[in-house]
Amino acid sequence: MLKLEFKPYILQKKYVFRIAGGARTSTPLVLTKLSYDGVEGFGEASMPPLYGESIETTIQFISKIDLSAFTNPYETESILEYVDQIAPGNQAAKAAFDIALHDLICKLLGIPLHHYFGLPAKNLVTSKTIGIDTPEVMAQRVQEASDFQYLKIKLGTDNDRELVEAIKLVSDQPLYVDANQGWKDKEIALDFIHWLKEQGVVFIEQPLPKANKADLAWLTARSPLPIIGDEGIQRLTDLKDAASLYHGINIKLMKSTGLREAFKMANTAKALGLKIMLGCMSETSCAIAAAAHLGALADWIDLDGNLMITNDPYHGHQVQNGKIMLNRFTGIGLLNPQWNQIPDYVEKI
Amino acid sequence: MLKLEFKPYILQKKYVFRIAGGARTSTPLVLTKLSYDGVEGFGEASMPPLYGESIETTIQFISKIDLSAFTNPYETESILEYVDQIAPGNQAAKAAFDIALHDLICKLLGIPLHHYFGLPAKNLVTSKTIGIDTPEVMAQRVQEASDFQYLKIKLGTDNDRELVEAIKLVSDQPLYVDANQGWKDKEIALDFIHWLKEQGVVFIEQPLPKANKADLAWLTARSPLPIIGDEGIQRLTDLKDAASLYHGINIKLMKSTGLREAFKMANTAKALGLKIMLGCMSETSCAIAAAAHLGALADWIDLDGNLMITNDPYHGHQVQNGKIMLNRFTGIGLLNPQWNQIPDYVEKI
Repeated sequence: MLKLEFKPYILQKKYVFRIAGGARTSTPLVLTKLSYDGVEGFGEASMPPLYGESIETTIQFISKIDLSAFTNPYETESILEYVDQIAPGNQAAKAAFDIALHDLICKLLGIPLHHYFGLPAKNLVTSKTIGIDTPEVMAQRVQEASDFQYLKIKLGTDNDRELVEAIKLVSDQPLYVDANQGWKDKEIALDFIHWLKEQGVVFIEQPLPKANKADLAWLTARSPLPIIGDEGIQRLTDLKDAASLYHGINIKLMKSTGLREAFKMANTAKALGLKIMLGCMSETSCAIAAAAHLGALADWIDLDGNLMITNDPYHGHQVQNGKIMLNRFTGIGLLNPQWNQIPDYVEKI
Repeated sequence: MLKLEFKPYILQKKYVFRIAGGARTSTPLVLTKLSYDGVEGFGEASMPPLYGESIETTIQFISKIDLSAFTNPYETESILEYVDQIAPGNQAAKAAFDIALHDLICKLLGIPLHHYFGLPAKNLVTSKTIGIDTPEVMAQRVQEASDFQYLKIKLGTDNDRELVEAIKLVSDQPLYVDANQGWKDKEIALDFIHWLKEQGVVFIEQPLPKANKADLAWLTARSPLPIIGDEGIQRLTDLKDAASLYHGINIKLMKSTGLREAFKMANTAKALGLKIMLGCMSETSCAIAAAAHLGALADWIDLDGNLMITNDPYHGHQVQNGKIMLNRFTGIGLLNPQWNQIPDYVEKI
């Protein structure tokens, strides 16, 4: 019998995290544990406000999952199809289940997750994300991230150029830029991307609002840097028209409903000639460890969500000099998870 | 260490097999065995003449595979990427390796192949294929196939209507129609498809030559029955413009380079809103058994290649009343394969 448990959790960020569209100091999570035959798999839902999920909606969703019809955890497609049709949306909640299921299966099989997906144990060069702040503070954060080979800079403000200039004064690291839908005018965006290219920027994530499809297609057809869809691309079926809007996609477990659909998205993106970025939300080392196993499928990795928090309940892969060193444990690669030491409840915020 | 062996084999057909474009009584194969740690996986290449492969090209290709760099069979993506880049084409040869690798991995893991792909053990309603012949002979073959719920009729002749009428006189089974690129005029094809719909036909496979893309798009936009791409869709990257040409695709291991890419093709097809048919060539129970594990991903199954031959060296899943009963053995599901009893050489034809 498959048994699912969960606990809410508030993940505390090291710094106030600002992006185009909001700022926060914590992220609500729901942690999951799926047991079968004495083996335990762990998962996680992370709910940044943008996507409309919360601890309440996630617990409500997870509480509806009735696994009594499933006697074989290896039939992931059937199990996850059942979970998916319980209610639309709820991608993070679905991911919390999917990740725990994959951790469980791989432990039962005695293999690390990347081998379940047929992938090599690839160490991953991840970028480090710098949230929006004053030019001085952003420059300071950049200096603190000198270990990392790539930085991901959040933009989408009225003084983006000033922010980039402040960063370039203190760093030669190549930059990924994430505008989080913060730019509104396609022509101004195109001019600015030309300038960003001269500053050593590698690609631009979600420059325009995801609903502005005609403008995105226009910009992607002209941009000298790859345009990556993030907010605009969540699940597999969103890839249908992705190649006309973007050069690549940012796959995140919390959008894709977890590992299985993320794997399918990566394969489909390759078929469509789309570049692949593997990203994350603010997450514990659980969801980050899981996503890292798909790293061999990605062109660019941004899996630093667990490096910017103060109360990570788990230990996963080590990060050395900006490289995620994929460990060889079975499952997603958590080291001795202490589920019972995680409190059952969180204080109401 | 991974060790690959192979043997050529001539598969004899029960009847002369005619389709639009050719007739034959046998099919050249290369059978493979991949060993690791005392465990053996089995695979197969089937080379119908259309795709340009032969026993010679396949043995030449397989002989180039050097597995000394790979110590871990679970890293299928890396291993298969290496095999794929040895030379272009050679899809059946690549499938022979891919199938043996998956059989091996699943035996090492102790699971049946469908569980490796996260799929349930689904019994499959397969169609039975009726080759082109005189109306009388086709009607006789249809009567011999009364166990099957669906028939797949080969057309693409000058007297297609007469053939269908002869079949309908003796059978009420719903029909799949495969024209094998045999129709040349899109308007005549459309008229005929309207008539075929009245005869209980379910879909039309490859009505027009695969190169006639504008005509295919025209026909697919107007056809009252689903149009399925077969010759026109071989590998994952062929799906890029598939949705504008076809309503669905016929996935065959001998075109896709094997199971892994077939699985990716099925997932991508779903993302693109394409229907999925799972088909085969003339094959032994080895490749048929392997393909059957992907059956849960397909809308229509045509896995009868092992039912129309007289010298099958293997035993796989049982077929009862037109249903493939997926067995629960580990790997692809061969029952006690007798590799050593298969001769090492075939007589030159």
